Amino acid sequence: MEFSSKLLENAVYEVSQLPGIGKRTALRLVLHLLKQPEEQTELLANALLKLRTEVNFCKNCFNISDTELCEICANPKRDETLVCVVEDIRDVMAIENTSQYNGLYHVLGGKISPMEGVGPQDLNIIPLISKVREGHIKELIFALSSTMEGDTTNFYIFRQLEGMNVATSTIARGIAVGDELEYADEVTLGRSILNRVPFENSIKAN
Amino acid sequence: MEFSSKLLENAVYEVSQLPGIGKRTALRLVLHLLKQPEEQTELLANALLKLRTEVNFCKNCFNISDTELCEICANPKRDETLVCVVEDIRDVMAIENTSQYNGLYHVLGGKISPMEGVGPQDLNIIPLISKVREGHIKELIFALSSTMEGDTTNFYIFRQLEGMNVATSTIARGIAVGDELEYADEVTLGRSILNRVPFENSIKAN
Repeated sequence: MEFSSKLLENAVYEVSQLPGIGKRTALRLVLHLLKQPEEQTELLANALLKLRTEVNFCKNCFNISDTELCEICANPKRDETLVCVVEDIRDVMAIENTSQYNGLYHVLGGKISPMEGVGPQDLNIIPLISKVREGHIKELIFALSSTMEGDTTNFYIFRQLEGMNVATSTIARGIAVGDELEYADEVTLGRSILNRVPFENSIKAN
Repeated sequence: MEFSSKLLENAVYEVSQLPGIGKRTALRLVLHLLKQPEEQTELLANALLKLRTEVNFCKNCFNISDTELCEICANPKRDETLVCVVEDIRDVMAIENTSQYNGLYHVLGGKISPMEGVGPQDLNIIPLISKVREGHIKELIFALSSTMEGDTTNFYIFRQLEGMNVATSTIARGIAVGDELEYADEVTLGRSILNRVPFENSIKAN
């Protein structure tokens, strides 16, 4: 792609550094901004800069928060003995949307992934182990995605917890509510049979 | 979507104002930036701000350019009597990529579109008419997209040119090179028959 302007080329290059955005899309977005009033670009640029420089993570669960302790951790009605371990803040938002969970969270900030150069030291694992060691937490729920990296991370944390008095669980894997059995993959269907639940429980959940 | 931080919510909102980017994608992009070094956000924000505030349009053809006259208009080897009328700078880039065109361009900056509130006065039509009136231009090639808005814009300009001594043409519509006839739509196929070209010309083009 040959550009008639260095300024334009530079802006397109920086936008195309974002994940999932190629050069063509970047050019489309940049030309859109050029057609809008100058304030829109200023609002966008300032919002990104302000977030990046002033972002604060909850000192307890590492969720993004404007206060020292996030709203969830600061809520006295939440069950402090139950901690759900998630990859990032989107998972917190997804679980909060279900209104089915009343415990706290612990945001790891990613998964162990040697391919992407992410090791245990890059994640918030040590603070999690320290929290568990303090002894107030009764159960850890692993809610990482069901991939090689997720399983590795779960297992790594599980090993670190050895000898500590804490129950561990993972979220249930199975056929999604509303899905047809015949279209489910074998691994999921197999797990849903192995980890079947008493019928009374499934009635309670509805 | 409920956010745990106003800063985050604001950044996601501004990113989701871009065309084709929803709230979820915006959140993914913003969280990506948070994981990257602070410099990357600064480079992105500054590139956008710099482009938006310092952008310059060629005073002859309205292409984006860092100089007063763009490289194409300033090139003495280009045929100044031939002007190709296009919607935006992406079309200039696309036509330049073909290496088949040696004339100049005129970038309108959009199409007449009552639905989107774009009238003739919002486009660079008056400077085009003035250029033609000066009398140096022998032919105008309309290369707008083949939509209702494109056709309206072509026709509007065509009417403004009445009585002036300039030839007008539109780029050929037809079956794309390499395409199967049976999959072409009827309108395109019909036009390709009506506007058939002497066989010798098609050999020359290859």
